[in-house]
Amino acid sequence: MRILGIDPGTAIVGFGVIDVDGQKKTIIDAGVIRTPANQELEMRLETIYTEINEIIKANKPEVMVIEQLFFGRNVTTAISVSHARGVMILAGQQAGLKIEEFTPPQIKQALTGTGSADKKQVQEMVKLLLNLKEVPQPDDCADALAAALTYNA
Amino acid sequence: MRILGIDPGTAIVGFGVIDVDGQKKTIIDAGVIRTPANQELEMRLETIYTEINEIIKANKPEVMVIEQLFFGRNVTTAISVSHARGVMILAGQQAGLKIEEFTPPQIKQALTGTGSADKKQVQEMVKLLLNLKEVPQPDDCADALAAALTYNA
Repeated sequence: MRILGIDPGTAIVGFGVIDVDGQKKTIIDAGVIRTPANQELEMRLETIYTEINEIIKANKPEVMVIEQLFFGRNVTTAISVSHARGVMILAGQQAGLKIEEFTPPQIKQALTGTGSADKKQVQEMVKLLLNLKEVPQPDDCADALAAALTYNA
Repeated sequence: MRILGIDPGTAIVGFGVIDVDGQKKTIIDAGVIRTPANQELEMRLETIYTEINEIIKANKPEVMVIEQLFFGRNVTTAISVSHARGVMILAGQQAGLKIEEFTPPQIKQALTGTGSADKKQVQEMVKLLLNLKEVPQPDDCADALAAALTYNA
């Protein structure tokens, strides 16, 4: 089963593709999509949609796992990221992927056994579960892999 | 100049297409896109994106005017509508339309001369400016036309 995990954002979108075969979990691809902060929203959305489509085309995942928003303090950021999330989910749906959404505590719970784990613990589990030498950088990339790992956890 | 106005939503999206030729403003098309409340977000986003594309293809507007969100009390609704707004803006951008966003007070100001006008006053101005016999129904449709009328107001 091939899974595309996404850590949504507007300036930076993390993605990570893994293969899960029983207990065996392998990293296939991972990286980030960046859009310039001074660019109009419509251009940033187009870039994100195009890049997600290319990642899907290149990796052919069956499932898209996309982190849900925690709109704590900054509603303006949540609104902006939701626009970007909309076009990411659209790309997945159009490609026939199953779309799954998990909250940050669900992801933390799945990887570390506790929903209140800190970011560093989650990243260490990503490294361990995927048998990597280092924690993937930047954080958005590790977070996307964590989302993907939650699907079959 | 042909303008597509949009009143964004998830359950119901209003749209209105007008032609503006100097002082002359003519209604070309207007209606709503509906998506079932019990449907998954990804399916609703796909429907909205497809329908907006068809409206653009049928009417060939040069500008998309899309109402900005006022996230007053209900942040959950704002988050959900922002996902839908993302795919609407994407459709406009991909079709090469100029994208404009106005806040509800800007639309009220442009149509009635006061940013605190009530919904009914705005709707009466839509009827008057487009020389219609009745206020377009449902409200989402009148609101979309109001957004379109704001562009050249």
